[in-house]
Amino acid sequence: MIPNINYNNLKDSYLFAGIAKKTKAYLEANPGTHLYRMGIGDVSLPLCSAVIEELHRAVDDQAVKGTFHGYMPECGADFLRKAIADYYRGRKISLSDDEVFVSSGASDELGDILDIFGHDKTVMIMEPAYPAYVDANIIAGNRIIRLSAGEDNGFLPSPAEIPTEAWGKADLIYICSPNNPTGAVFSKTALQAWIDYANQTDAVIIFDAAYEAFIEEEAIPHSIYELTGARTCAVEICSLSKTAGFTGTRCGYTVIPHDLERGGMNLNKMWVRNRTTKTNGVSYIIQRGAAAVFTERGQQEIHENIKVYKENANVLMEALDAVGITYYGGKNAPYIWMKCPGGMGSWEFFDKLLNEIHVVGTPGEGFGSCGEGYFRFSTFGSPKDTVEAAKRLKALLENN
Amino acid sequence: MIPNINYNNLKDSYLFAGIAKKTKAYLEANPGTHLYRMGIGDVSLPLCSAVIEELHRAVDDQAVKGTFHGYMPECGADFLRKAIADYYRGRKISLSDDEVFVSSGASDELGDILDIFGHDKTVMIMEPAYPAYVDANIIAGNRIIRLSAGEDNGFLPSPAEIPTEAWGKADLIYICSPNNPTGAVFSKTALQAWIDYANQTDAVIIFDAAYEAFIEEEAIPHSIYELTGARTCAVEICSLSKTAGFTGTRCGYTVIPHDLERGGMNLNKMWVRNRTTKTNGVSYIIQRGAAAVFTERGQQEIHENIKVYKENANVLMEALDAVGITYYGGKNAPYIWMKCPGGMGSWEFFDKLLNEIHVVGTPGEGFGSCGEGYFRFSTFGSPKDTVEAAKRLKALLENN
Repeated sequence: MIPNINYNNLKDSYLFAGIAKKTKAYLEANPGTHLYRMGIGDVSLPLCSAVIEELHRAVDDQAVKGTFHGYMPECGADFLRKAIADYYRGRKISLSDDEVFVSSGASDELGDILDIFGHDKTVMIMEPAYPAYVDANIIAGNRIIRLSAGEDNGFLPSPAEIPTEAWGKADLIYICSPNNPTGAVFSKTALQAWIDYANQTDAVIIFDAAYEAFIEEEAIPHSIYELTGARTCAVEICSLSKTAGFTGTRCGYTVIPHDLERGGMNLNKMWVRNRTTKTNGVSYIIQRGAAAVFTERGQQEIHENIKVYKENANVLMEALDAVGITYYGGKNAPYIWMKCPGGMGSWEFFDKLLNEIHVVGTPGEGFGSCGEGYFRFSTFGSPKDTVEAAKRLKALLENN
Repeated sequence: MIPNINYNNLKDSYLFAGIAKKTKAYLEANPGTHLYRMGIGDVSLPLCSAVIEELHRAVDDQAVKGTFHGYMPECGADFLRKAIADYYRGRKISLSDDEVFVSSGASDELGDILDIFGHDKTVMIMEPAYPAYVDANIIAGNRIIRLSAGEDNGFLPSPAEIPTEAWGKADLIYICSPNNPTGAVFSKTALQAWIDYANQTDAVIIFDAAYEAFIEEEAIPHSIYELTGARTCAVEICSLSKTAGFTGTRCGYTVIPHDLERGGMNLNKMWVRNRTTKTNGVSYIIQRGAAAVFTERGQQEIHENIKVYKENANVLMEALDAVGITYYGGKNAPYIWMKCPGGMGSWEFFDKLLNEIHVVGTPGEGFGSCGEGYFRFSTFGSPKDTVEAAKRLKALLENN
């Protein structure tokens, strides 16, 4: 028996595993060194108290026969589907509760969702991109059309840039806005062009909205469903990881409108069938905690945490401004995407920061070859570390 | 774009969804009726106090910066992988911690694991079987060889029964012991025959050990790794759902030995790559609760709960014995698999029990066509309900 040979087409090591390995080796060679970790986008602030209280309450529910919850509905608990749909409805997006699916997180869902599309598809990925988009499609045996983002298009490619030979070829189109890693955000006009293109060419957009809570500018869309025509071409995948510090607590959600059909098949119904076959739902305890995020108190508390991360972004942006480095993001996104100084390669810059100032970032090359020459900082670190890292970064870049 | 057309080959409704629909309709027509639910295998006892205390502690960890956990290792937290490996080692099975993978539960894992085998495989499923085995493989586009279990082989098929034309054709072989739905258990000799067959024919066994904690007889294997040669041919998938009441709390584990290779590819390494690409691990809180199951106190408490379910099994078995009905299981498994009386069809018997005595069970036909004429009772109900259901069942069958 030959297993899934597509695994042989994957690069040896996943980006973040590679970073972890390098930093581990550094710490083994230099024990006791404090590293300023701004690489992997993990949050540093604990869960807010509205969530903690609800988690405790839910644990208590599981201790007593009368309130104990066994198998959860596979597509999500009614109370949480409604809370999430209400959150959309609060932003004037009309959505029914059963268009919302609760997940264990966006990264899990991005892998799982490919199942309803099959294994002979062509997908369009705008690079630099979250590496799992590419890897999950390599594993599925899908063909990948790469669309390069760069300074010339402000890291926001438009359908007009699709090469003629690739026009209409993509079955799936990944869009991440606010973008990981570049922090770039699609305006309504720019996103509308993609929606129109997808509807025209029978493609489906996988819209990754994991960072929507970081948008500051009024005019930037938080959800693809704010735009006309998205209900017939888009799946939206969201996460509480960055919004509410759920990276280690795990919960997310996915929207699949009833109107989304391809080849006579209804994608919402297919996902229901997938979930009822392949999962027994997300933990009751975690879903209760997640529901607390959508209460008035929960929203207030998570936005206090987001403010802390935004202040981190400001600190870093000021440092880069001071030394005249070009960068993207930071304003509507928790990532800052900077140009490596002096034409340095991104892994070279990674090593330099690690060795000289003990700052860990993410080499742009890890997000696709067109990310070479760039470097990503996450703004999720502790304020104290971020201030020190910004100081060190500024000093280093001034001396270059 | 045409989505995954294999979904069109699935039957319209998943077994348990079908049962839920029928009972819902009955309750709408007969409001206020108390139903004795022994259909879906959901537990009725709350989580034990060792787990509850640990869950609370873990929630508190998430409330404070110094103890807060962000992203978990994708393959499972070290503390839980070690606790599970210790559990195996305690039964004299040699296993390294990194051969254990933490999952969100066996049902999730049974769907996900197919990814490392690819989408052009032939799988052997012994029916009657847990319906998700079949459905997940239909979705993947795999060919299915069905091996019928019945009274003639004690619901335990042996490789000797494989038709000549199918010999050596299966890439994957599903074995569930203790079996859902029949409650039958493979002896060491009978299981060894499958291990030898798999090693001989280059197949991989997916061993579903979700019910191992219910084994009473000393000689019955709890794990396939108790037997010689399993490390080179078997993946073992387990769950805390039934063992520790985690149906709604969600945690399980999968063992993939380092020795398991096919086509020059190492399946443990492939699963690491799958997990690091497609998940961000299982919730820290839930993993802490799961680890408590493997403590001395946790083990004692969960076995007190299991005793309650075993007493339910005894009550049902006595009722069936009294009316001379043939049945399987109950002793080493939480399911009782009875022959429908008077040659009745299994959905016919379902309707009869629902309408006449308000007892909900599971029609054998839902587990494959050779399950027709049989009926499954879960022993996870409340003792009070089980006693009453057994009484009603006995009275009904006596009058038939």
